[in-house]
Amino acid sequence: MESKDPNSGRSYGIPETIDDRKALDKFISGNAGKKVIAVQGLGFVGAAMAMAAANAYRGDYAVIGVDLAAPESYWKVMALNEGQFPVKAEDPKVLEFYEVARKKKNFTATCDPHAYSLADVIIVDINLDVQKNPKKGKSFDVDLSGFRKAIVAIGKSAKEGVLVLIETTVPPGACEKIVKPILDKAFQERGISKYFLGHSFERVMPGPEYIDSIQNFYRVYAGIDEGSAQETEKFLKTIVRTDQFPLTRLHSTTASEMAKVLENSFRAMNIAFIEEWTEFAEEAGVDLYAVVDAIRKRPTHRNIMLPGLGVGGYCLTKDPLMASWSKKNIFGSKAGLGESEHAVAINDMMPKHTFDAAKRLAQGNLKGKKALLYGVSYRSEVGDTRSTPVGMLYDLLKKEGCTISLQDPYLTTWPEKNVKVEQRIPVEGVFDIIIFCTNHKGYRNNKALQESIMGMKRCIIVDSVGILDKGTIALFKAKHSIKVIGRGDI
Amino acid sequence: MESKDPNSGRSYGIPETIDDRKALDKFISGNAGKKVIAVQGLGFVGAAMAMAAANAYRGDYAVIGVDLAAPESYWKVMALNEGQFPVKAEDPKVLEFYEVARKKKNFTATCDPHAYSLADVIIVDINLDVQKNPKKGKSFDVDLSGFRKAIVAIGKSAKEGVLVLIETTVPPGACEKIVKPILDKAFQERGISKYFLGHSFERVMPGPEYIDSIQNFYRVYAGIDEGSAQETEKFLKTIVRTDQFPLTRLHSTTASEMAKVLENSFRAMNIAFIEEWTEFAEEAGVDLYAVVDAIRKRPTHRNIMLPGLGVGGYCLTKDPLMASWSKKNIFGSKAGLGESEHAVAINDMMPKHTFDAAKRLAQGNLKGKKALLYGVSYRSEVGDTRSTPVGMLYDLLKKEGCTISLQDPYLTTWPEKNVKVEQRIPVEGVFDIIIFCTNHKGYRNNKALQESIMGMKRCIIVDSVGILDKGTIALFKAKHSIKVIGRGDI
Repeated sequence: MESKDPNSGRSYGIPETIDDRKALDKFISGNAGKKVIAVQGLGFVGAAMAMAAANAYRGDYAVIGVDLAAPESYWKVMALNEGQFPVKAEDPKVLEFYEVARKKKNFTATCDPHAYSLADVIIVDINLDVQKNPKKGKSFDVDLSGFRKAIVAIGKSAKEGVLVLIETTVPPGACEKIVKPILDKAFQERGISKYFLGHSFERVMPGPEYIDSIQNFYRVYAGIDEGSAQETEKFLKTIVRTDQFPLTRLHSTTASEMAKVLENSFRAMNIAFIEEWTEFAEEAGVDLYAVVDAIRKRPTHRNIMLPGLGVGGYCLTKDPLMASWSKKNIFGSKAGLGESEHAVAINDMMPKHTFDAAKRLAQGNLKGKKALLYGVSYRSEVGDTRSTPVGMLYDLLKKEGCTISLQDPYLTTWPEKNVKVEQRIPVEGVFDIIIFCTNHKGYRNNKALQESIMGMKRCIIVDSVGILDKGTIALFKAKHSIKVIGRGDI
Repeated sequence: MESKDPNSGRSYGIPETIDDRKALDKFISGNAGKKVIAVQGLGFVGAAMAMAAANAYRGDYAVIGVDLAAPESYWKVMALNEGQFPVKAEDPKVLEFYEVARKKKNFTATCDPHAYSLADVIIVDINLDVQKNPKKGKSFDVDLSGFRKAIVAIGKSAKEGVLVLIETTVPPGACEKIVKPILDKAFQERGISKYFLGHSFERVMPGPEYIDSIQNFYRVYAGIDEGSAQETEKFLKTIVRTDQFPLTRLHSTTASEMAKVLENSFRAMNIAFIEEWTEFAEEAGVDLYAVVDAIRKRPTHRNIMLPGLGVGGYCLTKDPLMASWSKKNIFGSKAGLGESEHAVAINDMMPKHTFDAAKRLAQGNLKGKKALLYGVSYRSEVGDTRSTPVGMLYDLLKKEGCTISLQDPYLTTWPEKNVKVEQRIPVEGVFDIIIFCTNHKGYRNNKALQESIMGMKRCIIVDSVGILDKGTIALFKAKHSIKVIGRGDI
């Protein structure tokens, strides 16, 4: 089996058996006297969390990043040990922290679960996905088998007195009803009586403040019991600058788990809310951007959302479903969280509004048209394509027979679609349709981009993220067909 | 016909014909040199707006309050001229302003539309209601006939160059599609060619900051044309402290009208959102108050709402419907704002959650039970019963055969129900059911209230607004059956 690094293109053969025992033991003896932190899962969160631990604000840790010897993760372990950080990050602190850790030799990565036997703290940062439309009659499901396996692996190896800290977004109730029973059983079999179990969700935001979103941000936590809460607090205080961002302890891990999915559901619902008002503003000839700006002056209304292409990222697209799943499957309620599920459904369909606008401007005929999408990432100033709403737009245009070119200053490829992405602004060539999909600063007031568009013959322009100012809109309007989502007054 | 002052109980006979011409002309000559402001509608907004104009921050106005010679409004005009302010207000500034205006003699009230002929500025502050369930097949409707009549009255009398400023919450599009055509026609018939028409919605909040919600708060405005926008701005700058709260001009009156209903829909939807999470928290044994407090630490999540009894007041209960009505009936869209309508429907049903909790604790049998409701107002520290959610709870309990006592420190009667309200805390007597309905400070940590409840035999206590702290809950729990809405962990 192979595991390919999408950044370097390099392939690694995955060995049949993993045995890092010697290397790990050597790593530990080289870091004698230090507490050992194992981070399970080296994705967007785990990789950054490992760096935050290796460069702890208050504490000197030996940190082991652990991930599975599987095609999607083996390369991360290899890359980390060879000097390549696996996540592209706009925040210079990430690479800085990584370099310091390599110099200090207090970080290593492995696929060997032996790591768990060495750790004083095990942080669980693996992904837990929601399957949308898994089969007929079910609109979504949560498959816990991978998560259970990860906890079983910890139960098999972890030592007496370990703190297991769950950071993964889980269905509320997971620590009490899933993690604790697994660990209790495993530890009992191994004669271990004392361990700590805490939950503290991360609020990691890839982008220019990647590390700060761990070190310099508010944290919520809870323990399965008072001792666990205390151990969790003690550890978090070494990672988070709690002098400026005090911790909040909740009364149960279920409460902490609920806080995470509730805050993301709140956000998802607020985005869904603005969707039908976008349509209304367009019908009524109103500039919804101006209206929202006016409303935001009220302190109680500061976070009303702007119109846009849609919702992306790993959290907002699934967390409301995770909560709803828990309500029914963990707490046995007949009804899920229908409103929150509905918000996800609205958001999932949002890109169709932009697609429809383009199709309308093309008099219904998109066949053979050359389309160019400015922006592939789901948010600005980040090279992150996870669940990007551009995906649906891309698929819809493709289905209609468009040929599609992609541009994003933060990407060279779109891994989920396995297609090339141009980095340069503007993209050379002539296009029939140009759609602004991501609110990257580089598109705003960009003279060269403006000139490239004005140099084309009449084309269709859709701005789905409010990139274009009134002057540019007027300029484009004189030559092209243009539509700005949420701006009915152009 | 009679018009009864619900505050004093005094009745006024409404005369067949209204002729205040002499008195008004005398008022004007007594205020020679001052600009004249007429405020149409003397409800919660108009009465306060008239006081803000009579005590303008920058300007010296003669202000005439105008309302209809109808049972629901005639008494207001009479009371104002006799020295009684018609709205009970916790804000001492209201009466202060009223007294100053009476001394300065720059305020009077009338039912005579002659007032409009004297005014340089006419501010429209009349109510525009949404009829819920008006007839089969329609879940709501907006009857514009009263609003149209009010504008027609202005068109008949107003003078050349008048500024008509709409503050009433109207369906977006109303100024352009309803008000302007009426005024254009009326003025044309009278040979008047110049007038100004602006929209600037109020954000009046009855309660301790009643006057400040006009004088010291952000304002949005727009004019039907550039001249109207300028006149509106000029006037607002004399009323609002724009040095601290700068005005926001929008590009059209429709945009300004939309801003008002959008911001209230946003709020209504955020309240509706938390409703199903309240249920989830109760099922999962989670204290949703603690969870929401933890989430609110994030600056982007500061206005996530707490659980509660329900939504009341004049705006949040109808504005989303007003917007949806406009979308279909003014802009001819096939679809209304389904999500925003749905939020209103959820909020309208919210009090049933509290009722159900009480009924469950009573093992399904409420017949003949003596219930006491602490709080009738729809919000804390205010004596305002308009569309209070306590109404639905009251009706449900009544229907089950309860006898109901009411307490509210800010009320003596509940005008909509025509029932007495006790002002003293605690209410004397013994009750089977006690429900906290409004988050008045006076209920919190109130020893006498605690003792009165502990002095009763076993009773049912439902706290629907998070009034009781953990200590009090524990105390009550030892003797009574208690349920706190949104707190699953008690």
